[in-house]
Amino acid sequence: MNYFRENIDRLEAYTPGEQPQDGGYIKLNTNESPYPPVRAVLTAMRSAVNADLRLYPDPLATRVRVKAADVYGVHPDMVIVGNGSDDVLSILMRSFVGENDKVVFLNPSYGLYRVLTDIQSGRACCVEYTEDYRLPDQIVQHDAKLTFICSPNNPSGTVTAPGEVARLAAASRGVVVIDEAYADFADGTCIDLVRSHANVVVLRSFSKSYSLAGLRIGLGIAEKNLIAGMMKVKDSYNVERIGIVGAAAALENVSKMQANARKVKRDRGYLTKQLERLGFRVIPSQANFVFVFPPMPAGELYEQLKARKILVRYWNRPRLSDGVRISIGTRNELDTLLAAVTDILASRKQ
Amino acid sequence: MNYFRENIDRLEAYTPGEQPQDGGYIKLNTNESPYPPVRAVLTAMRSAVNADLRLYPDPLATRVRVKAADVYGVHPDMVIVGNGSDDVLSILMRSFVGENDKVVFLNPSYGLYRVLTDIQSGRACCVEYTEDYRLPDQIVQHDAKLTFICSPNNPSGTVTAPGEVARLAAASRGVVVIDEAYADFADGTCIDLVRSHANVVVLRSFSKSYSLAGLRIGLGIAEKNLIAGMMKVKDSYNVERIGIVGAAAALENVSKMQANARKVKRDRGYLTKQLERLGFRVIPSQANFVFVFPPMPAGELYEQLKARKILVRYWNRPRLSDGVRISIGTRNELDTLLAAVTDILASRKQ
Repeated sequence: MNYFRENIDRLEAYTPGEQPQDGGYIKLNTNESPYPPVRAVLTAMRSAVNADLRLYPDPLATRVRVKAADVYGVHPDMVIVGNGSDDVLSILMRSFVGENDKVVFLNPSYGLYRVLTDIQSGRACCVEYTEDYRLPDQIVQHDAKLTFICSPNNPSGTVTAPGEVARLAAASRGVVVIDEAYADFADGTCIDLVRSHANVVVLRSFSKSYSLAGLRIGLGIAEKNLIAGMMKVKDSYNVERIGIVGAAAALENVSKMQANARKVKRDRGYLTKQLERLGFRVIPSQANFVFVFPPMPAGELYEQLKARKILVRYWNRPRLSDGVRISIGTRNELDTLLAAVTDILASRKQ
Repeated sequence: MNYFRENIDRLEAYTPGEQPQDGGYIKLNTNESPYPPVRAVLTAMRSAVNADLRLYPDPLATRVRVKAADVYGVHPDMVIVGNGSDDVLSILMRSFVGENDKVVFLNPSYGLYRVLTDIQSGRACCVEYTEDYRLPDQIVQHDAKLTFICSPNNPSGTVTAPGEVARLAAASRGVVVIDEAYADFADGTCIDLVRSHANVVVLRSFSKSYSLAGLRIGLGIAEKNLIAGMMKVKDSYNVERIGIVGAAAALENVSKMQANARKVKRDRGYLTKQLERLGFRVIPSQANFVFVFPPMPAGELYEQLKARKILVRYWNRPRLSDGVRISIGTRNELDTLLAAVTDILASRKQ
């Protein structure tokens, strides 16, 4: 007997990148920061591991909302805190998408948009990026309830200019979500659009630039009526006490996060140049990763790197199967990667 | 312009009990444990606040599944770990309930079942407990996709016997969920039913008996095919790193949790007897709270206690508006409550 809804039964679940729990890998596959969280953040969190854990957290995560409002120049009522930005994505789906409602997203992009649409029984409308990763005309769909733009885009690393997003938002009758999980590594942001457009939601994540992937904190920033409705849909206690303390402390130490982001940007330039010298084509990236096309079968490169305990991300999918996505690790990790790549390429020539 | 789905727009959100962040209250309103988490659990968590927080958690929370399997006598594949058992409830809804599908739950019981049904656009079918809190015949609905039994029930504190649940499960063509958030304070459990019934899911929470409400950990325990499907629906990284470490440590220290639960049961007996002496009617409870009918208007008692910085839970709803729910605090907290109640009752007689 099968108890599941039909759409869940046939659902192809989202597959996260490998998370080996045994250590010993150079992990360049899931876009984590190579740097530890800021010391003051760890100290604050350690002091939150106390008897008060017997008590429920603040359902509104007020401390985080207040600090985030300060950092992003909005009112606290314009912020919702999620258990990772994936949680905010689920809340968005459940808030705005009914059965068979249209959800628009791009290809190639973050695979979770489609999975969450399928879980929600929405109607997925996947449109192709142009070859140079600009928005195609079909991105405007008048019956779309939700449209997702990932900028910088995962896995291409390319950005959509705020002006383009503004035009899309103005032309849309539904909600437009700009997933800015990687924006701290980019030159621009769409955050200002939440003040001018009542249908724009900007997402931020603490999993990349803030070095807190293990903590699960994400933000949704939007006009306050949108946030108020989303608050009704979220679990009451979706963010735990230590996470609230950690996220608030992280927002008090933005400059240290930004210093790490600058190192990542510098090393992204270094990796790009070195890989190009080795014959790779590299899509110019504004994120903490690069999508690269190696001068050999990409799946084979992925396997050979994995055998050397270096994980990168490979998808056997149209537009992606000729490349791999490489997260920007420390300079040492990147040099180890480059030496391994050099070695693999050389061994093919023999 | 309203962007929300109609069901979300008209949704009456779940209102959690008050969580004053300013301290100074005796909190007997949200069924938290009055005792701190076990010391070894805090120590383990503190050591997990380290540089590894830059990395994503194990998507499967394997350590917790393995330990939980050991404690509850099941296979690890029969366990799903949620961001609180509320997260597991959301996963259940999204797994089994399509638009207009029937969801059965009881009244009075945990209010979230209805809210989650409404969010999912399911068809809520609320059946009344008998006057002595037994299952009514209407609990068996042949077209129910999900049926929720809370046992011990919140807020009555009453239990449904495993035999009764087994009969319901056998008669049901959908999934039957037994929400055992309070089972560690009861004399029995339905956990054995997951081995004999492929449509039974038992929920456990770390928010009450384990003194870890602030951490957000809950479990779903069921036949492995049910769990495998629910795994596709949950967020990949729904449980954070420190929570995984804390929950695993808690499961290694079950005997200390049980010692606290015994104290709660003892003090539940004490509070029951004292309130009865003051003229209250008390529903015999197997949970860490009692639902009591005071010899005065219950809403007024709630307000007067709140003015004295003592929080209990009051609902202005049929079957509940003549009573209040009181969590079992420390003996000192209960004595403070009893003194306040005595005083309030005396002042009414003047």
